[in-house]
Amino acid sequence: RERVCRVVESHRFQQFIIAVILVNAAVLGAETSPYVVVRYGEVLSAIDHVALGVFIAELAAKLYAYRLRFFCDPWNIFDTVIIGLSVPFAGGGISVVRALRVLRTLRLISVIPSLRRVVTALLNAIPGMTSIILLLGLVLYVAAVIGAKLYGATAPELFGDLPTSLFTLFQIMTGDAWSDVAREVMEEHPSAWVFFIGFVLICTFVVLNLFIAVVVSAMEE
Amino acid sequence: RERVCRVVESHRFQQFIIAVILVNAAVLGAETSPYVVVRYGEVLSAIDHVALGVFIAELAAKLYAYRLRFFCDPWNIFDTVIIGLSVPFAGGGISVVRALRVLRTLRLISVIPSLRRVVTALLNAIPGMTSIILLLGLVLYVAAVIGAKLYGATAPELFGDLPTSLFTLFQIMTGDAWSDVAREVMEEHPSAWVFFIGFVLICTFVVLNLFIAVVVSAMEE
Amino acid sequence: RERVCRVVESHRFQQFIIAVILVNAAVLGAETSPYVVVRYGEVLSAIDHVALGVFIAELAAKLYAYRLRFFCDPWNIFDTVIIGLSVPFAGGGISVVRALRVLRTLRLISVIPSLRRVVTALLNAIPGMTSIILLLGLVLYVAAVIGAKLYGATAPELFGDLPTSLFTLFQIMTGDAWSDVAREVMEEHPSAWVFFIGFVLICTFVVLNLFIAVVVSAMEE
Amino acid sequence: RERVCRVVESHRFQQFIIAVILVNAAVLGAETSPYVVVRYGEVLSAIDHVALGVFIAELAAKLYAYRLRFFCDPWNIFDTVIIGLSVPFAGGGISVVRALRVLRTLRLISVIPSLRRVVTALLNAIPGMTSIILLLGLVLYVAAVIGAKLYGATAPELFGDLPTSLFTLFQIMTGDAWSDVAREVMEEHPSAWVFFIGFVLICTFVVLNLFIAVVVSAMEE
Ligand code: NA
Ligand code: NA
Repeated sequence: RERVCRVVESHRFQQFIIAVILVNAAVLGAETSPYVVVRYGEVLSAIDHVALGVFIAELAAKLYAYRLRFFCDPWNIFDTVIIGLSVPFAGGGISVVRALRVLRTLRLISVIPSLRRVVTALLNAIPGMTSIILLLGLVLYVAAVIGAKLYGATAPELFGDLPTSLFTLFQIMTGDAWSDVAREVMEEHPSAWVFFIGFVLICTFVVLNLFIAVVVSAMEE
Repeated sequence: RERVCRVVESHRFQQFIIAVILVNAAVLGAETSPYVVVRYGEVLSAIDHVALGVFIAELAAKLYAYRLRFFCDPWNIFDTVIIGLSVPFAGGGISVVRALRVLRTLRLISVIPSLRRVVTALLNAIPGMTSIILLLGLVLYVAAVIGAKLYGATAPELFGDLPTSLFTLFQIMTGDAWSDVAREVMEEHPSAWVFFIGFVLICTFVVLNLFIAVVVSAMEE
Repeated sequence: RERVCRVVESHRFQQFIIAVILVNAAVLGAETSPYVVVRYGEVLSAIDHVALGVFIAELAAKLYAYRLRFFCDPWNIFDTVIIGLSVPFAGGGISVVRALRVLRTLRLISVIPSLRRVVTALLNAIPGMTSIILLLGLVLYVAAVIGAKLYGATAPELFGDLPTSLFTLFQIMTGDAWSDVAREVMEEHPSAWVFFIGFVLICTFVVLNLFIAVVVSAMEE
Repeated sequence: RERVCRVVESHRFQQFIIAVILVNAAVLGAETSPYVVVRYGEVLSAIDHVALGVFIAELAAKLYAYRLRFFCDPWNIFDTVIIGLSVPFAGGGISVVRALRVLRTLRLISVIPSLRRVVTALLNAIPGMTSIILLLGLVLYVAAVIGAKLYGATAPELFGDLPTSLFTLFQIMTGDAWSDVAREVMEEHPSAWVFFIGFVLICTFVVLNLFIAVVVSAMEE
């Protein structure tokens, strides 16, 4: 078992895994082209299966080497989930799951230490932001219900039901084409500017403060 | 009175209120769907009335427990206003006010301590920004008057009167589709680029400094 | 002279001037509505002339009180220029200059101390940014010349001549609808993505660093 | 050789070079106008050749003065590459390379010390950002492959092949018109909002943290 451990942790083995991930990523990218699939589809599919085999063997070796400690490292669970997603559909499967095979490329994050550190830092930043994100979600929900009730009949493609209204207001929150939405609604409801400008101002203000909170907490460390 | 006080401040009571708010929010969200209203309209309406009753009872209990101190806590006033908005129209009323019932969901802010803290922090950030917001408003007003006078006849849907012009320039201030506005006006007034680029530069510059002022003042604390 | 000095610097006099500016601003805003002009045009025009008279009298009083020291305060020069702009055209004049009368409202900046301080801070931030602004201007010019030469024939309304190309690239620099521009050009020049994505990346990167430079220099104070 | 050295490093010589760069930039800008080219094309072309001659002479003088040390200063290599680009095509050449002659204007960066310092600072900021940029690139690639596989058939002009999909997702990453893209795809794939909102949220979050990382590292210096 110790020998397996040493192999799995060796620099060379990790470089080999990185290479397999990159080749697999290139293959899955190439598969997006119908022309390439017609010509080299079988070769690409074979490489993909080999890569999947390598990943499963790697996980098995780690599981053998670390036993239950394997599940203590969240990155191992991350790898297992990503690989697990594609196993049952290796031979075919519905298109959404086939497309998700490319998520395997995200294994680069768990293999390359600097990426792993960045993502860990990103995830650690989330707890300090939950309150403000909750507040944004609350504002979004309240505005979406108001939008759906007031403007649902006027602009059904924008505010027709609650999910549509949520999508439209998320779009406004990101500042994308909010004036088009507002102008369309204001043709029938001239006073709708109160709703839209209010929403834009509140979101901008909250996001600005979200940002500042994150900068300040980052500096304190 | 002390017993009422203890009940109102108990953890369990607050969790009960949070649950009522969430159920009420879900009901008001469900009411946006005509299909659901036709089928379950009466049940939803009943739940809404019960929730409103609970909120009124809660306010009454707090008022009884704290007497005049009730009005010292601005969050109590916040709750009272939000609940008060929907009482006179509980049985019907015009659509705008009916839509505003969902504002009750914002009571989550006054009930959940972490949200309360975030919003307090947001409100405390405002005084330090008033000068720059005043300046932005001043720039917006001056530009809107100039825009309405110079381009009102050319592009009435964008600069036709002062409110329209204010809306268009607020849109440009947020950076949304400003080039479409500028290009439309520049077809007739080729020199309008001075106005639009000047306005974009001034706004960007002022907003940038607003931002920095807030960051710097946040760090000083 | 000392008495004039005391009057001009008195709190009450400044509040009077602020009131005149606000009334004048409201009048100039009202003048944007043809309906109002037809009905109350003469009254509005009279108020405007009285306000202009007050401003000129104020400047004259200050000039008498401070003599040459008057010109040491840049805000006095700011006021003089703004007032001076509207004098020769008080009785009529071309529409652009008439529209610029509303710039008088900007005198609020020189009269209200907190606004004056904010604007002074903004202007003081400029010298620290000149190098990066120069760099942005350089990048903009170089890209505009390349854009005009390569895409001028394909998309004349976007890159037809150097000013048009400069405007389009300024628009892209602000991130507004850059993909529409890029997609239109890429229909004829498929490799134009190099130009557009390169320009977007460089601008984002330089602006990001401009921003950081300003934050850092603001913190150092 | 020392005399050449002294000349090349003299303030006057540098101002002369700046003047030549500016004149050359103006000439290349003027050449974008067909009207000007018809009338003054030969004069402009002559000035351009003289400017190129001056730049080559300058490089030759520096090479003579510093010998191999010439290649130690990366700015000398920058100058050589920029000048070298236009030499073989001085007399004609394909239009892309002719358009790139204006890159010579970027020599202002190597000649003006303050610009040189700013660009050096920009380049020094890159190493601290590589991990996050790599992460963004990884997210972009994975999303582009998924987008091409799932939506390539529905919206070929947006997700038809991998490069198109990469361009579209880069556009969404910059926040430009992402809702137009999402709405077009969602007409056929109603569940596509998961993909687009997820991508927008992840990108915003990573870019926010990229930004913070840069601010924090800038403060530490
Ligand atoms: Na936009
Ligand atoms: Na935008």
